[in-house]
Amino acid sequence: MEIPLPAGSLSTPEAVSIVEMLPRDGFQRLDRFVPTEKKVELINQLSQTGVDEIEFTSFTHPKAVPTLKDADAVAQQIDRNPDVCYRALVPNLRGMERAVEAEVDKVNALVTVSETYSQNNQRMSTDEIVAGIHDIVELAHDHDILVEAGMGTSFYCPYEGRIPMEQTLAVVDGVVAAGVDEVTLATTMGLANPLQIAETFTAVFERYPDLDVGLHLHDTNGMSLANTLTAMQCGVDRFDSSVCGLGGGVVLPDGMGGVGNTPTEDLVHMLTAMGIAVTADFDRVEETAHIVKDELDLGPTSHVLMGGTPERVLEHVRADKEGSQ
Amino acid sequence: MEIPLPAGSLSTPEAVSIVEMLPRDGFQRLDRFVPTEKKVELINQLSQTGVDEIEFTSFTHPKAVPTLKDADAVAQQIDRNPDVCYRALVPNLRGMERAVEAEVDKVNALVTVSETYSQNNQRMSTDEIVAGIHDIVELAHDHDILVEAGMGTSFYCPYEGRIPMEQTLAVVDGVVAAGVDEVTLATTMGLANPLQIAETFTAVFERYPDLDVGLHLHDTNGMSLANTLTAMQCGVDRFDSSVCGLGGGVVLPDGMGGVGNTPTEDLVHMLTAMGIAVTADFDRVEETAHIVKDELDLGPTSHVLMGGTPERVLEHVRADKEGSQ
Repeated sequence: MEIPLPAGSLSTPEAVSIVEMLPRDGFQRLDRFVPTEKKVELINQLSQTGVDEIEFTSFTHPKAVPTLKDADAVAQQIDRNPDVCYRALVPNLRGMERAVEAEVDKVNALVTVSETYSQNNQRMSTDEIVAGIHDIVELAHDHDILVEAGMGTSFYCPYEGRIPMEQTLAVVDGVVAAGVDEVTLATTMGLANPLQIAETFTAVFERYPDLDVGLHLHDTNGMSLANTLTAMQCGVDRFDSSVCGLGGGVVLPDGMGGVGNTPTEDLVHMLTAMGIAVTADFDRVEETAHIVKDELDLGPTSHVLMGGTPERVLEHVRADKEGSQ
Repeated sequence: MEIPLPAGSLSTPEAVSIVEMLPRDGFQRLDRFVPTEKKVELINQLSQTGVDEIEFTSFTHPKAVPTLKDADAVAQQIDRNPDVCYRALVPNLRGMERAVEAEVDKVNALVTVSETYSQNNQRMSTDEIVAGIHDIVELAHDHDILVEAGMGTSFYCPYEGRIPMEQTLAVVDGVVAAGVDEVTLATTMGLANPLQIAETFTAVFERYPDLDVGLHLHDTNGMSLANTLTAMQCGVDRFDSSVCGLGGGVVLPDGMGGVGNTPTEDLVHMLTAMGIAVTADFDRVEETAHIVKDELDLGPTSHVLMGGTPERVLEHVRADKEGSQ
């Protein structure tokens, strides 16, 4: 069967940028509040891994997302690495105002493609959310803050099931018309497959060949690295991921725990192994994954954490051999 | 960067065939002996999932692989579905003689590319193993049995690390010259990445455009579905996998447990979602995965078992909603 990749798409991007989502998507989904000073400590740690960008908090109403109620304090207390772009999620203009106060570099203006999801999550229609983006862009650009539209439920919705591609493209049209600087499609449910990824991004690039397009992957179905590969072949060169895979859909099945995003360490492992340039340093990302796992008392939630790299496997084999001699 | 896929490789195969490895690779690696009648029961169950082929046992010396010491009895007792190809692993001519007795349809003649691995595992050089394939092919073809050369350590070796591609290609040359009907490259360590997969299969197809080539994926690094996708784009249309992911490398790091192969249910899920024709029926494979998990008392070892499909996620969301009303 034909995967409808655009002509010339046999190559992957020379370089890929990575957005670390742990402090927002990860901490948000945790069943407990991570104390502010611990958040600051871990964000400072993440600022040293070489990732291009960190979504470090969300300026949401404290009652809506109590795990991130300390967003303003976190913004004040973190050490900002000049090589890192500090991004925050904003669900509305009030959030954007707080983001200006916090002097962020970029905001993730949240939009959801699914009508039912928009109503359930934000008590607005998708059109109303998209209309609100205009004001967010205006305020952001007045303060030299970049705006990325993070498009939730671009592929599947927990209430509506599969989202027709035309519906996703219509929202891309809306946010582009609103003047956002970047668009990121998100697999909120983690159920997208490589064909759907290829079809969607091919269509997006046909409409907007020069648009800065990223992908935010949850991994409910285990296809996130395959989806990454396909998206790269379509020309996508910016990926969200989270150390230890922490974060992901709000309505994941039992047993999938807090694990939901592509683990940053697994993503950087694959890209580095493939010779694709990433500023993130694999060794530092791996070390940080172990720190986060220990600090947050997580199980092994990624293949890298389980020792699934050539270095760790060969070490393991050598140690075993010595042990048995 | 360029992934060196051959021209015209934007399409994936129309149809893909799947070889179920649970009864050999899975049972072999288990830390306990699965009683013969239980093996037979589970193989009979697997024969109804629609998979094209089942590697149902290994005719290895009982002392070398005690978990499969009942190979001959298993061969006698299973119900053979005429739509399924029953394949067995044979490490040498003695194994091939037993496979003839057992009236198998195909054998997996094991070869290992890594010199150190060959010496450690079979106490022979790789050349000696390849030379032995000639006799296996002769005996097999005398009895209308197909021969597939299963090439272990085609990408990484637990002792030597990364295997240079030329070394793998030389073994492909050797087994093709020996007259095998098919070749399967195996990621014994589960450490191959999509670029290595693309480079290797492109080179194989350049030498042998019409060769029947398959891929046996272990998943130590989590890249097995990405590797599957890349291999399909190179033209590979036969994949080994194991229900519940059971099986995999002999020297996996702690914490990776018995999980090592691509889970059949995750593979069939991806292929089916992408509209690629497989004879395996997803619903029956999913059901069988749950049976195997329960019978062998495994944890959830695949994304499908954790409920990572659109159907299960939507069910879960609906149930949650009803529960909260």
